[in-house]
Amino acid sequence: MSEYPPTERTRVKRKRDRGSFDRDLVHAILDEALICHVGFASEGQPFVIPTIHARDGELLYLHGSPANRTLGELADGAQCCVTATLVDELVLARSARQHSLNYRSAIVYGTGREVTDPEEKQRGLRAVVEHIAPGRSAEIRGPDEKDLETTSLIALEIEEASAKVREGAPGDKERDLESPYWAGLLPVALTAGEPIPQPDLPREVALPEHIKSWRR
Amino acid sequence: MSEYPPTERTRVKRKRDRGSFDRDLVHAILDEALICHVGFASEGQPFVIPTIHARDGELLYLHGSPANRTLGELADGAQCCVTATLVDELVLARSARQHSLNYRSAIVYGTGREVTDPEEKQRGLRAVVEHIAPGRSAEIRGPDEKDLETTSLIALEIEEASAKVREGAPGDKERDLESPYWAGLLPVALTAGEPIPQPDLPREVALPEHIKSWRR
Repeated sequence: MSEYPPTERTRVKRKRDRGSFDRDLVHAILDEALICHVGFASEGQPFVIPTIHARDGELLYLHGSPANRTLGELADGAQCCVTATLVDELVLARSARQHSLNYRSAIVYGTGREVTDPEEKQRGLRAVVEHIAPGRSAEIRGPDEKDLETTSLIALEIEEASAKVREGAPGDKERDLESPYWAGLLPVALTAGEPIPQPDLPREVALPEHIKSWRR
Repeated sequence: MSEYPPTERTRVKRKRDRGSFDRDLVHAILDEALICHVGFASEGQPFVIPTIHARDGELLYLHGSPANRTLGELADGAQCCVTATLVDELVLARSARQHSLNYRSAIVYGTGREVTDPEEKQRGLRAVVEHIAPGRSAEIRGPDEKDLETTSLIALEIEEASAKVREGAPGDKERDLESPYWAGLLPVALTAGEPIPQPDLPREVALPEHIKSWRR
């Protein structure tokens, strides 16, 4: 098991058994989460912004437009905290106190850099498309020079990272076990509905397999 | 339409048409999102922590254990930024550049206070249970004195808040419209699976209606 080295920031203070530095687990959470939440502080004021990300090995790309304030701050070298969270189950206890959610979250700390090299930008943008819909990058038009100019991409080395997982049953105490209340878990997941084709699609363009079979 | 007053922090800098200060919209996003991401800075270092929240009118409750570091910082008066995000559709364009997600996000800025009054704590914890599963608070054991002692709750006035929404079709340019690539939207939603009852439930305890009909 390959692990990220624990640091002051990533050490999970509460309920240590929920914390992990396992690389595969951090990667899996980042890959499954459609979006992340990027935090940075500007003059002491924290901001938390939902952002599309993609992972390429130990690089995390954050995607946006050049006018995006968050990416601007990150390009300027702001310390950031990127968090991706998946909710897996509602934890429904007999007592109000023991209600919770089963979840997996990954946190990456670091300083980003703006991607300016056109080849890396191509790779990063491809990773973003593959993150949203695996298999799709082969069935679209890739970015040209102007597309690259009008896209901003921040790259962050995944060096300082951790995961946190809650799983399992509600923690009702002995005294509540005989109560007349239902308790258990309710699994929840992000699922796809019916695709909505663009009305102006040429008739011969069929729904591709990677969309038909999309799942998270 | 009732609106939150725009401030320096909540003014949406990019793509103004996506920003809104509408109270009903902010409320609806906070209510639908199962979790939020809470950001604060400690000595310049930003942290972004997934947290269960609940709204009660213009109060936002954040829920955790007394050992929770985030809640401790908030109780100590740290400036915070609370963001809740719902992803509605994958935006699948013909060009890589125009890929995006349709989403709704709400951001609340402010300073929290620790809830210490037992009556308010009761109300807040009830709001948290109702947030996770509406209707459930009537079918469980409410918190006793010890439960309240071992729960931490932060309250934040929703005064400075905004929403951001992206909706609609991919923004492919003219030149790509005749391309052979499929484009459109793929709706995604958090859906419930089969409930998993606790193995030690007394036999006569049936699955309650509020779990059968749970949806977001």
